[in-house]
Amino acid sequence: MRSDVVIDGLQYNNWDRALFQKTRDGGVHVVHVTVSYWEDFRETLLKITEWHRHFVNHSDLIMPVKTAADVLEAQRSNRLGIVFGFQNCSPINDDLGLVQVLHELGARFMQLSYNNQSLLATGCYEDEDSGITRFGKQVIQEMNRVGMVIDMSHSAERSTLHAIELSSRPIAITHANPAFYHPALRNKSNTVLDALAESGGMLGLSLYPFHLKNGSACTLQSFCEMIEQTVERIGIDQLGIGSDLCQNWGYDTLEWMRSGRWTFVADHGEGSAADQRWPDQPEWFQGSSDLPNIKSGLAQRGFSEVDINKIMGNNWLRFFQASFGPPATSDAV
Amino acid sequence: MRSDVVIDGLQYNNWDRALFQKTRDGGVHVVHVTVSYWEDFRETLLKITEWHRHFVNHSDLIMPVKTAADVLEAQRSNRLGIVFGFQNCSPINDDLGLVQVLHELGARFMQLSYNNQSLLATGCYEDEDSGITRFGKQVIQEMNRVGMVIDMSHSAERSTLHAIELSSRPIAITHANPAFYHPALRNKSNTVLDALAESGGMLGLSLYPFHLKNGSACTLQSFCEMIEQTVERIGIDQLGIGSDLCQNWGYDTLEWMRSGRWTFVADHGEGSAADQRWPDQPEWFQGSSDLPNIKSGLAQRGFSEVDINKIMGNNWLRFFQASFGPPATSDAV
Repeated sequence: MRSDVVIDGLQYNNWDRALFQKTRDGGVHVVHVTVSYWEDFRETLLKITEWHRHFVNHSDLIMPVKTAADVLEAQRSNRLGIVFGFQNCSPINDDLGLVQVLHELGARFMQLSYNNQSLLATGCYEDEDSGITRFGKQVIQEMNRVGMVIDMSHSAERSTLHAIELSSRPIAITHANPAFYHPALRNKSNTVLDALAESGGMLGLSLYPFHLKNGSACTLQSFCEMIEQTVERIGIDQLGIGSDLCQNWGYDTLEWMRSGRWTFVADHGEGSAADQRWPDQPEWFQGSSDLPNIKSGLAQRGFSEVDINKIMGNNWLRFFQASFGPPATSDAV
Repeated sequence: MRSDVVIDGLQYNNWDRALFQKTRDGGVHVVHVTVSYWEDFRETLLKITEWHRHFVNHSDLIMPVKTAADVLEAQRSNRLGIVFGFQNCSPINDDLGLVQVLHELGARFMQLSYNNQSLLATGCYEDEDSGITRFGKQVIQEMNRVGMVIDMSHSAERSTLHAIELSSRPIAITHANPAFYHPALRNKSNTVLDALAESGGMLGLSLYPFHLKNGSACTLQSFCEMIEQTVERIGIDQLGIGSDLCQNWGYDTLEWMRSGRWTFVADHGEGSAADQRWPDQPEWFQGSSDLPNIKSGLAQRGFSEVDINKIMGNNWLRFFQASFGPPATSDAV
């Protein structure tokens, strides 16, 4: 029997050696990292080659993960495994052919839109949601073919349901919480949660304060209660963590994430003009090394060890195994 | 009193010296030429520098037109004036700042979408039309500020009405016909025609066979009857010609226009898989030098010379004068 893995379904950090070490020593085996938001194909290559430099310079601490087998190799060799993903479709520009190119370069997740309307789908901050576009239908088919996971974390409701319906393979919402727990624009309705789970998709539960009840003051008890209620609704097998942890960045990075190049006037996203800073993390989740707090919180609520380990990473591993290659084959684990 | 000008509100040709000469000798003073469809900013610069080479090599025959005054200079110097425009927003990538950059490089028209959903607006071939996006609202404001005309020729109905409503300056539909004349997907409803005209916008009447009753077999009489009915509906002052003439291209160019990079399977647009060729022009409009046929046709229907000249170019000139710079100033003509 293989050992249990700990996987974080989304982080966006300004990585350095200290953070690699801290994350690995905190017991995390694999992180899905955000490579791009608004970066186009060429800019994304700059980010990917930054990662190549990290892999060369810190080969004792980290390794690239392109298959489920790589997850186990990361665990075996005591290194942090890195899965590449994009929070928007900017990296493929307007070119269907770049899906396979970026898959070959290691990308395993791509959001179809990030807050705004994209060429593929509507984002959650638009007034109107027209669903998946003509180009979007082609891209979903191509992502299904090569084995790149469709991520709808920042997409609008109708587009999300449409993507679940159009995709021949399960999709993911790597980082969001149920709206029944906290009605943020970014959290997901019961309709979405049900459709996601029924199709075999994954929900990564978020620890970003704007997605939490009482924000930075959210308690561990409250977070674990949300997990319990979510399990009651969609079962234990479709849930993981997608912490949305953003570390070591200045406010300029948050401005870039929110405003990209599409507006001259700052867009404040989930924040406001009056509060121009990153939200504080809850005291019980300051970083990856606090993941054990969630394990304890779930154990206190009576979750079994098997179920806790599913949520902490085993569900993500099963999903990676089924998702990170062409549909007919599966990675040997 | 200035003399009358002949302006074609849209052509997309594979230009060479022979075609420049033929167009000028045919009595056309200015053509709005399509520089880009799916070309991004960098690719658009390649197209613009191709034009710079044309301007150097054929300075006796052509000149760039950036203002209404340039139109009159083209006429005075017996050269064909060239206005740059884009049939999609691909040239600005995702960058609001590129609107001013491209305006300074001579772009005076930009469509907000071309058949498909863009980052700004919905195209006429999508199933759903969500109107102008968050980024689209910023771009409209910026185009209004610098003096780049919003063109909705290939956009969907709701997006078109939304653009007219949001734009503080009149917009254009450079090449399309009324749907009441021929119910093609690309032709415009009475609702759009009325809103366009009431806001001071311009409609360029198209001679592309797919926009004409009976296609390539459309008669001059039928075309002039359409003009008469359109004048009855929206008046004489908002109408021009936007021939949509496409000359000297192979079928591969039509495939590029239709399928760009967004699909691996050919999209047939207004054509079909069974008919893989450019449609034949009507015998009475084989090219720009046949514009006098339309003048004769209108005269036979009893149009006055003043009204005919408005349609043949004077309305476009008035519109250029009001549109090609910041709102507060106007070009001296």
